Amino acid sequence: MKPYTFEKSEALFERAKKVIPGGIYGHQSPLLLTKGAYPSFFARGEGSHVWDVDGNEYIDYMCSYGPIVLGHRHPRVEEAVRRQGDLGNCFNAPTERWVELAEYLVSITPFADWAVFAKNGSDVCTYATVVARQATGRPKIAMCQGAYHGAHAWCTPVTSGLTPEDRANIVYFTYNDLESLQRVVAENHGKIAGLMISPFRHDAGHDSELPVEGFLSGVRKICDDHGIVFILDDVRAGFRLHMGGSGELFGVRPDLSTYCKAIANGYPLAACLGRDSLRKASQEVFFTGSYFTSAVPMAASLATLRELEATDGIERMRAIGEKLRTGLLSEARSHGIEVTYSGPPAIPYMTFKADAGRFDRNKLFCGECSRSGVYFAPRHNWFISTAISDQDLERTLEVTDRAFAAVKSQFVA
Amino acid sequence: MKPYTFEKSEALFERAKKVIPGGIYGHQSPLLLTKGAYPSFFARGEGSHVWDVDGNEYIDYMCSYGPIVLGHRHPRVEEAVRRQGDLGNCFNAPTERWVELAEYLVSITPFADWAVFAKNGSDVCTYATVVARQATGRPKIAMCQGAYHGAHAWCTPVTSGLTPEDRANIVYFTYNDLESLQRVVAENHGKIAGLMISPFRHDAGHDSELPVEGFLSGVRKICDDHGIVFILDDVRAGFRLHMGGSGELFGVRPDLSTYCKAIANGYPLAACLGRDSLRKASQEVFFTGSYFTSAVPMAASLATLRELEATDGIERMRAIGEKLRTGLLSEARSHGIEVTYSGPPAIPYMTFKADAGRFDRNKLFCGECSRSGVYFAPRHNWFISTAISDQDLERTLEVTDRAFAAVKSQFVA
Repeated sequence: MKPYTFEKSEALFERAKKVIPGGIYGHQSPLLLTKGAYPSFFARGEGSHVWDVDGNEYIDYMCSYGPIVLGHRHPRVEEAVRRQGDLGNCFNAPTERWVELAEYLVSITPFADWAVFAKNGSDVCTYATVVARQATGRPKIAMCQGAYHGAHAWCTPVTSGLTPEDRANIVYFTYNDLESLQRVVAENHGKIAGLMISPFRHDAGHDSELPVEGFLSGVRKICDDHGIVFILDDVRAGFRLHMGGSGELFGVRPDLSTYCKAIANGYPLAACLGRDSLRKASQEVFFTGSYFTSAVPMAASLATLRELEATDGIERMRAIGEKLRTGLLSEARSHGIEVTYSGPPAIPYMTFKADAGRFDRNKLFCGECSRSGVYFAPRHNWFISTAISDQDLERTLEVTDRAFAAVKSQFVA
Repeated sequence: MKPYTFEKSEALFERAKKVIPGGIYGHQSPLLLTKGAYPSFFARGEGSHVWDVDGNEYIDYMCSYGPIVLGHRHPRVEEAVRRQGDLGNCFNAPTERWVELAEYLVSITPFADWAVFAKNGSDVCTYATVVARQATGRPKIAMCQGAYHGAHAWCTPVTSGLTPEDRANIVYFTYNDLESLQRVVAENHGKIAGLMISPFRHDAGHDSELPVEGFLSGVRKICDDHGIVFILDDVRAGFRLHMGGSGELFGVRPDLSTYCKAIANGYPLAACLGRDSLRKASQEVFFTGSYFTSAVPMAASLATLRELEATDGIERMRAIGEKLRTGLLSEARSHGIEVTYSGPPAIPYMTFKADAGRFDRNKLFCGECSRSGVYFAPRHNWFISTAISDQDLERTLEVTDRAFAAVKSQFVA
C-alpha cells in the first residue's frame, strides 16, 4: 500500500493559517505531530475508523483526544441525539435530561451526592477550586508540578499572557511523592483549600505513571487530617477505567471529581460531582454558561454511559488495550527495540527508551503508522474505544511492525 | 384562559434539588424569576414558541437568554446540523467547517483579520484579556463597574470562593463616563493591557443604556493614545444588532471582539475575532478545550449567519422590536403606568419606574405574562428572534395589556 498523502489537508491548512492564528491551536496543533505524516482536517468517522479530507482512512487510537469512547457515531448515542434534537436543545431552563443525568451520575458514583454541568474540562476543574475555597475559606490550591488541569490561567502549561497573581495561590508537589505533599502542606499550614490530582499521572510528553501503593490513600489521609478538599481530576481518564470514577480502580474516594471527554461520546459536556459536605459551598459560588443546560449533550451522555454500563465497555477497553500492549511489546522485542509502555491498558502511551525524553523515534514511529492508516499521537497518551475490533487490532499490528522496522532502519542505536 | 400551572415542573425541581445544588444554578436560576409563575423545565421548541414539561405553550422573548436568534429548530440550521452530524462532529483535528467559518466571520467583520473558536462566552472573554496582556506585556484590564463579561473569577458578579489576587489586575470605570476612564488610565499609567466593554450597557437587573454620542469613539481614542487593546464584548448583543459586529452600529471598531449566544442558534460555540496586530500574541498564548474544533456547532453557525444575512434578519428583529416597544409603551400609557423601556429594539428591557430599582411590579408583570403564555424575564434584558410573527405580537399585546391591568390593580401607586 502506498503511504498516504495529504494534498487537501495541506491546502486547507494554508487557508486556515490566513484566518486563524497558527491555523490550528491547542492540543490538536500539527506542531505536536510528525511533520508531513498527519492529516490536519477530518471529513467523517464511523465506529473505530475516521477519514481525513483526502479520503485516507485510519483506525483511531486518539478518539478525538478522549471524547469518543464508543466509537464515532455510535447508533444508540446518535439515536438519543436525534430524538432530543427533534424536541430542541437549548431553552430558557433545563429539560428533564438535566435531572435524569444528575440522578444517574450520582447513582453510579459511590462518593457523590450531587452533580453540576458545564461544557469544558477547564470549566469544571476551575469550578472545583472555587467550591473548595468557598467551603474552607482558604486561598490555596495544591497540584502536581507538570499536571494538566485545563487551559485556565491558574494551571495552563504555557504562561504567555499571564500575570504573577494568576498563580499566587497555587502550590506544587510531586506525583507519587507523599513527602513532597507533606512538605507543601506544612509550608502552607491552614491555607490550602483544595488539592487537585489526576487518578494516574498522564502529563503530556511524559511516560504515564500509575499511583504507587499507598500514594492516593496517603493523599486522602493528608487531606482529611488538614481539612483539605480532595479533588479528583477525572477529565481525561473518567469512564475509561471504572464507571464509578477512576478513584474506584485505585481505592480512593475524592470529595469532588471532574469529568469531560468520554462523558458523552463527543458531545460537549463536562460535569463536577461532589459530596453533601460541599453542597452549600456549591450553591454559594457563581457558575453559568450559555449552553450549560443544553439537552442534546445530556441525552448523548445518558445513552453513552448506559451503553458502557450495559455492555461492560470498561472491561472491553481494558481487554483491547491489553492485546494492543502485548502485540506492540512483542514486536518491539522482536526488532530489538526498547520501549516504555505506560498507563492503564485503556489509556496507554508508548515511548522509545533511546529517545531519552526527545521524540525523534516516536515521531517517526507514529508518523509511519499515520501514513499507513493507524492514528497514534507521538507526544500524548492514546485512547482506546470499545469500537476497536479484532480485525482492527490485527491490521494495527501489521502497520506497527513495519513502523518499528522503519525506526530500526533509520536509527542505528 | 386559565393561568398556567406547573405541577410537573415543580415535581422535577424537587428531584433536581436532591442531586444538583440549588436545583438549577446560574442565569437560569428560578430565584431570579417570579415565584410560582414560571416553568423550571422545558420539553420542546419550534420557531418562536416553546412548551414546558406541563404542556404549557409560550411565545419566547428570552430565546434561551440569547442563543436562539432564528427561532427554535430553524429548518436550515437543523438541516446543516443533520448533514454534519451524519459525517461526525468531534475528531482528532478540525473539519473544513473550521476554515469556512473563520473565513466567513472575517469576511463579514470589517475590523477582523482572524478568528478563534471555543464553547462559552467566558472562554473567549478571558482569552481576549490574555491576548491583550501577551501583546502589550502589561498586566491590567479595564472594565466597567457592574458589567458582565462571564463567569470567571476576574469578572463574575458573585465573589464567593474568590481570592483577592483574582482581581488584583482589574481596574474599573463607568459606562458612558469618559472622565472615569481617563482617571483610571492616568492612575494606571502604562499598565493597562486591554479594555473590555459591551457595545451598550446591559448589566443584569439595571435598565439598559445606549452609548452616548462620542463615548465609544472617545474610548477608542484613549485606547489608541495609550496602546491599550480595545476588546468589544459582543457575546450578548452580537448578530442581533449588526452582521459586522455591534460596534458597526455605534461607529466604533475594536481590536478584539467576542461572540457567543446568537452565533449558532443554540449550538455551543463562541468566537474571538482580532486584528493582524494581535495575531502573534494570539499564537503565543494557550487556548484549547475538548470540543473547541467540533464541527456540528460550526455547521450550525454558518447556516445561522448566512440565513440572517440572506433574509436581513437584523432589520427584521429591529422591526419586531419596534412594534413590541410601541405596543407596550402605548399600553402602559393607557393604564397610566410609567415604565422605562431601554436597550436597542432587538434586545429590549422594560422596568416600572415606581419599582425604583426593586422588581415588585416587574415580577408581577412578567409572571402574569408567563402564566398566560408570553415568556419575559423580570431581571434580565429580553431577546427578539426573527421567528416572532405578527400573530405572536398581537397575542403578546393582549397578554401584556392584562398584565399591566394586574399591576395597576395590585399596586395603588
